[in-house]
Amino acid sequence: QSLEATGRDVVVTREPGGIPIAENIRALVLKAGQGGIQNAISETLLFYAARNEHLQQKIIPALEAGKIVLCDRFHDSSHVYQHYTKGVPETLLKSLDSHIIGDFMPATTFLLDMPVEQTSARRELRGASDADKFELEGLSFHAKIRDGFLARAKAKPNRILVINAAQIQEDVANDIYNACIARGLL
Amino acid sequence: QSLEATGRDVVVTREPGGIPIAENIRALVLKAGQGGIQNAISETLLFYAARNEHLQQKIIPALEAGKIVLCDRFHDSSHVYQHYTKGVPETLLKSLDSHIIGDFMPATTFLLDMPVEQTSARRELRGASDADKFELEGLSFHAKIRDGFLARAKAKPNRILVINAAQIQEDVANDIYNACIARGLL
Repeated sequence: QSLEATGRDVVVTREPGGIPIAENIRALVLKAGQGGIQNAISETLLFYAARNEHLQQKIIPALEAGKIVLCDRFHDSSHVYQHYTKGVPETLLKSLDSHIIGDFMPATTFLLDMPVEQTSARRELRGASDADKFELEGLSFHAKIRDGFLARAKAKPNRILVINAAQIQEDVANDIYNACIARGLL
Repeated sequence: QSLEATGRDVVVTREPGGIPIAENIRALVLKAGQGGIQNAISETLLFYAARNEHLQQKIIPALEAGKIVLCDRFHDSSHVYQHYTKGVPETLLKSLDSHIIGDFMPATTFLLDMPVEQTSARRELRGASDADKFELEGLSFHAKIRDGFLARAKAKPNRILVINAAQIQEDVANDIYNACIARGLL
């Protein structure tokens, strides 16, 4: 709402981006058992195939039309889930980033961070019915994921800003908005 | 049959390899229209995801058990279809090859070659009902694919042997068998 109030066109999207092919790929990745993916490298390639279609069909056309694109999750999630926790070589991820994202790397990434115990409590408040296979993992898995995101933010301090997500919603939004102003994005 | 007559265990497989997940990925790649893949890089990543599962689940365990693996199509097809005809950067394919195939590169690859006019005639004899979207393309497409495979064989003379497939079936088989003997594979 704050971005739109500046008069710029804003595209709000999320991976896999509401694009039919990307949704189909996501369904394949999240499928368990015999017909499912057994190996983290395959999982990585499928996520990047969905990311590439999302970029080509939705994000790049919007950027080229001068719009602001706000995307929920992007390649950092692959680095944390597939490299940091599952050991897929970072060289493979970097090669995929350079061929697929190239010049369309996000200008700024906001990492909404809070202690994992609090995220579980919030999820319970929201109702557990929408939990996917990643959300069903235990606290120690989520703690590792959090470590991975914080390590990545530390390694990319110019792009990734850590936001205290334990605050009330309005304060989270204000911190993000003020960071956008400070970075000259608005 | 000749390989089996030597007493070695032989695994005959083909991409996508009869593995459920790989078949599911293949269906996604070959799907046309709205829910289908729009971009050749995504197509490449999906084929390599299927290749990776095929390697991990079927080919590598067979090789490690000392078996001979005979596989119909492999990464050369990606280089020809996705790089040579569709322009996907070779650097991306090489990065995928090194991370996914690594030490399990084929010892020998046989390129069964014949003029494209003759392949169409053979396909008609066989009945057109089994044609997929690639087989339905015109002669100029198939001529380009043939050029691509021949160029790749020229660039990899130690691994890829060109076999004259315009001969009768027995002569094709004999040429391959004799090449196996000459290369010390049997």
